[in-house]
Amino acid sequence: MALVVQKYGGSSVADAECVKRVAQRIVATKQAGNDVVVVVSAMGDTTDELIDLAQEVSPLPPARELDMLLTAGERISMAVLAMAIANLGHEAKSFTGSQAGVITDSFHGKAKIIDVTPGRLRSALEGGSICIVAGFQGVSQDTKDITTLGRGGSDTTAVALAAALNADVCEIYTDVDGVFTADPRIVPAAQQIPKISYEEMLELAASGAKILHLRCVEYARRYNIPIHVRSSFSQKEGTWVVASTEGTEVEHAIISGVAHDRSQAKLTVVGVPDKVGEAAAIFRLVAEAEINLDMVVQNVSAASTGKTDISFTLPATDGQSALAALNKAQEEIGFESLRFDDRIGKISLVGAGMRAHPGVSATLFGALADAGVNIEMISTSEIRISVIVDQDDVDTAVHAVHRAFDLDADQVEAVVYGGTGR
Amino acid sequence: MALVVQKYGGSSVADAECVKRVAQRIVATKQAGNDVVVVVSAMGDTTDELIDLAQEVSPLPPARELDMLLTAGERISMAVLAMAIANLGHEAKSFTGSQAGVITDSFHGKAKIIDVTPGRLRSALEGGSICIVAGFQGVSQDTKDITTLGRGGSDTTAVALAAALNADVCEIYTDVDGVFTADPRIVPAAQQIPKISYEEMLELAASGAKILHLRCVEYARRYNIPIHVRSSFSQKEGTWVVASTEGTEVEHAIISGVAHDRSQAKLTVVGVPDKVGEAAAIFRLVAEAEINLDMVVQNVSAASTGKTDISFTLPATDGQSALAALNKAQEEIGFESLRFDDRIGKISLVGAGMRAHPGVSATLFGALADAGVNIEMISTSEIRISVIVDQDDVDTAVHAVHRAFDLDADQVEAVVYGGTGR
Repeated sequence: MALVVQKYGGSSVADAECVKRVAQRIVATKQAGNDVVVVVSAMGDTTDELIDLAQEVSPLPPARELDMLLTAGERISMAVLAMAIANLGHEAKSFTGSQAGVITDSFHGKAKIIDVTPGRLRSALEGGSICIVAGFQGVSQDTKDITTLGRGGSDTTAVALAAALNADVCEIYTDVDGVFTADPRIVPAAQQIPKISYEEMLELAASGAKILHLRCVEYARRYNIPIHVRSSFSQKEGTWVVASTEGTEVEHAIISGVAHDRSQAKLTVVGVPDKVGEAAAIFRLVAEAEINLDMVVQNVSAASTGKTDISFTLPATDGQSALAALNKAQEEIGFESLRFDDRIGKISLVGAGMRAHPGVSATLFGALADAGVNIEMISTSEIRISVIVDQDDVDTAVHAVHRAFDLDADQVEAVVYGGTGR
Repeated sequence: MALVVQKYGGSSVADAECVKRVAQRIVATKQAGNDVVVVVSAMGDTTDELIDLAQEVSPLPPARELDMLLTAGERISMAVLAMAIANLGHEAKSFTGSQAGVITDSFHGKAKIIDVTPGRLRSALEGGSICIVAGFQGVSQDTKDITTLGRGGSDTTAVALAAALNADVCEIYTDVDGVFTADPRIVPAAQQIPKISYEEMLELAASGAKILHLRCVEYARRYNIPIHVRSSFSQKEGTWVVASTEGTEVEHAIISGVAHDRSQAKLTVVGVPDKVGEAAAIFRLVAEAEINLDMVVQNVSAASTGKTDISFTLPATDGQSALAALNKAQEEIGFESLRFDDRIGKISLVGAGMRAHPGVSATLFGALADAGVNIEMISTSEIRISVIVDQDDVDTAVHAVHRAFDLDADQVEAVVYGGTGR
């Protein structure tokens, strides 16, 4: 008998009919002889509606109370789902994050899980119950206040429970069939990926692929929990996210997928005195404003002026804070001006195989040049190459790169998964 | 500095505007130098909407899950109210029933409070916070499951917290100005009662007056917590529910008020063998079906047949269960038939003063006779007389009795509260 943790997102439980369908799937998993723990998000637009309600009484609601409010969403969905399962003749018990033992730090709205003590879930499983757990929420160790985990929180809850309960698999249900080689809305020929390593999935998630959140994949990698990303609307096998092994890597494609991200912006600090410590001063300011930089480029200083430009990318939503922080320090740092550009896009090519294939960059740059796409910035990791392009060029670039690495549907069978008998 | 517990019902926090107005009233109480603990119900129709949602997935949802679902309602209202107070510049913290230390038994949907351990509220008050507590809910001592207290639950939460925190007063906010001598919708001349004893309020509540629930008044009497029932839409003094003292009773009217109740039904067991133990067998059956009887009448047995009829009143909603239980035992008990009548109404006259005035019954029956109202059953307590009449006669009867005891507005100043300088 296996222990299966399943996570259903808000669109999978959008209304009573959806909840009933999910209940049937859960019962089928139980009837197949498994213990089942289900993590559920708030129904449909509930969270947005609650945020709207908060805005009606306060433009800047206290974070503790916003967490208290938002956790009502999962409370509703989990109780209703437990009822739907009971209506099919199986016992189901719902548990809040706190009851399920999801212990967090005290950072409301973006709390981190620091411990999981699922004693009540274990007892309920031993008693034959299906456990339904509220995703996205926990209780702070210090203050015993209710916290939320922030973006991707329900996925993280599922993986954390799977780790604490030593589950055999963590199934993440969504509205697509799994992880694709590119966003199918941009590249209709994109292929579903049957199997991908944690490392590659991490790079894809960090590069804008929205299917799994970075924190959830990090958690799964740390505890070696196999994730199965699949659709709640079909019975098809989805994408397995697992530890990479030597054996699988040989057969693996050079490139797993192409991710894109339109949410970044580029900030250029113009005319910075080319002295030791100037760049450090700039980045310290930005860090103090709690802004996460992504890519950084420092131009070669023009010998005639002794000045240089420093560009970096950051979430576009953090642009105003970054500009304000830098403007305040203009005199101290002595730069000339700031340029802000949120009309950029990032294209990332991810694949464990590129370690062994030095020609990847050349192919990438060639494909973009052939497509007439200008590259503004470049950054790389061991298994990823990212480029910044004009936002209008994102679709063209994704298409071109996807095809250049033989990922399109008519190419993929032979090349990418050749010989694996998929 | 006083400690004030305030309770706001669902209509007082129906939408964001209402919540803001309630927040202002709470802040005013705080600014007047009081510590404030607020108990809040779910916003407007939230509870009904959640029940509808439950019905969509299950005709008979498990009680544990229904409690989990319904408690989301207060979670939303308390967080939003805390935000609205914070927006006025005062610190407010919301607490679930469990966090506030409301410990109950395990009877989901109608749990009883067995202990209150408000340590977190005390700490928050010491820290200068206003405390907002979810009404209607608690946590079971045995299973640590979330429970709801059933009808009148939020009032009971408020009084229980007031008792545990040794509060100076428990203010129950509603949409009318207090307790009236009769339902003002039936008797426009009904008067607001400035002060009433726990005992009289208990009898009124038990007799159908909906303003305060029986359990809440019982709790307040046991712990001697003064209740102030008042409107959240005005600043007027409302009705004080307090311990009776010899001094106040002398000045008090004979009759405090007239209550009515259309929710009862009458069940008659026809042709019961007139033997010892037959009535006991019938009432044991009804008790086993967990039905609360109110009034009971056994007719004098007709000597010729050796048979008698036994009638009792019960909540109309329990009628089907009672009929089923009795029908199953017809052979065993040997009665002839059952008659069920839900077209009845109960009129109750309540007043501590009737102890010292033996003419009350005569005046009551005379007034009803003059109004042409037929009396079907009668029951009395030390400070109450109730009669069962045809449901169509309820309004006529309430009017007639109210006037007969000089409670109408044009009569009341001189007679009922004569000399108190109200």
